[in-house]
Amino acid sequence: MPAPSIRSKIRKTPGEPASPWAARRRLRSGHALKRDAVILAAARAFRQRGYHNTSLDDLAASLEVTKPTLYLYVPGKEAMLFECFRAGLAQIQSTLEECERAPGPARERLFAFIRGYAAAIVGDFGWCMLRAEDQHLGTAMSRRIKLLKAGIDRRMRALIEAGVADGSIRDCDPKMTAFALAGALNWMGHWYREDASLKPLEIADRFIDFFNRGLRGRD
Amino acid sequence: MPAPSIRSKIRKTPGEPASPWAARRRLRSGHALKRDAVILAAARAFRQRGYHNTSLDDLAASLEVTKPTLYLYVPGKEAMLFECFRAGLAQIQSTLEECERAPGPARERLFAFIRGYAAAIVGDFGWCMLRAEDQHLGTAMSRRIKLLKAGIDRRMRALIEAGVADGSIRDCDPKMTAFALAGALNWMGHWYREDASLKPLEIADRFIDFFNRGLRGRD
Repeated sequence: MPAPSIRSKIRKTPGEPASPWAARRRLRSGHALKRDAVILAAARAFRQRGYHNTSLDDLAASLEVTKPTLYLYVPGKEAMLFECFRAGLAQIQSTLEECERAPGPARERLFAFIRGYAAAIVGDFGWCMLRAEDQHLGTAMSRRIKLLKAGIDRRMRALIEAGVADGSIRDCDPKMTAFALAGALNWMGHWYREDASLKPLEIADRFIDFFNRGLRGRD
Repeated sequence: MPAPSIRSKIRKTPGEPASPWAARRRLRSGHALKRDAVILAAARAFRQRGYHNTSLDDLAASLEVTKPTLYLYVPGKEAMLFECFRAGLAQIQSTLEECERAPGPARERLFAFIRGYAAAIVGDFGWCMLRAEDQHLGTAMSRRIKLLKAGIDRRMRALIEAGVADGSIRDCDPKMTAFALAGALNWMGHWYREDASLKPLEIADRFIDFFNRGLRGRD
């Protein structure tokens, strides 16, 4: 580690790397940023034009780079879809981890997760999350996506089971309940429009009201 | 109309048309039966291999007819998908009409509809119902499918509104509730397997239990 005087001296030269290691870190983070930009552009193109109707040429043109440049970041269109799937999943996983670790009754934590899930589904990567499996991916990639999806299902189910255990959720079939919840939320990806009167979190709250109390009126 | 004696005489010749009109009726019903068989085979092929991976040649081969013969019944692959969609829809519409006309509180009629809907979604035409819009149909066909889907949405919503009016369903947002219900049911098309331990109507009943009472445990 350089002495403070040297560090401050180096810092005086803006735009120039402080050390070869910092330069490499910067390069790496520059690469990661560009890769993220490629994946985001792919997600938007897939949603707008459909996976099959999007070519890497279109994508390269929209980013104002050449097709070989795209390959520096992601090795092909199928990998692009997979990375989109993974980016959406990362968003869902991070909200899931937060909800798993939070204090309080599991039902409230499940509802917090539902809010995060709704936001992810209507976000940039939501379309890919919902449709990736329908896109004739190779067997290996399909299997990886199925495994990742199954992981979310399992953890959602575990959250419901925790609610049954702590009494905040009534005794129910956790598997079928998780499927019903996920279905209601995933379906948003089909009907939700950005110009709709309700924002994603408002929709999530109406859903939560229904999930919480059900339909039953006076009996 | 022929006299009884002539009718009974005609009936004695089995296999032979009773009249040119009857012959035409028989031909027509033969045509309709064959057309139904073509549409059913298409639905199964689309589900099994995907729409884009199914060719009319495959379909003709599976029915042991020539491709031109297929065109006698349905004018092309896109029309085939549309007819599959319409067949699934007809199933849902018929259960919907039954539930609309039935006596009793609207909540019970809604639940009867949910059972019928679940059966249709996992049936032969369910896949086409769910995915038709993702298959790059022409604008005109896409629009027709959207209109037909919107019709089901609207009638499902009306059933919920009727429940709020008769007190069997508590005051809720009928539009969002209908979307949540339809989403939960449609999602079955993604995860349901015929060899699963629960049959479609058992799944529908677990869903109904959840839709009815919600998740809330002891508070």
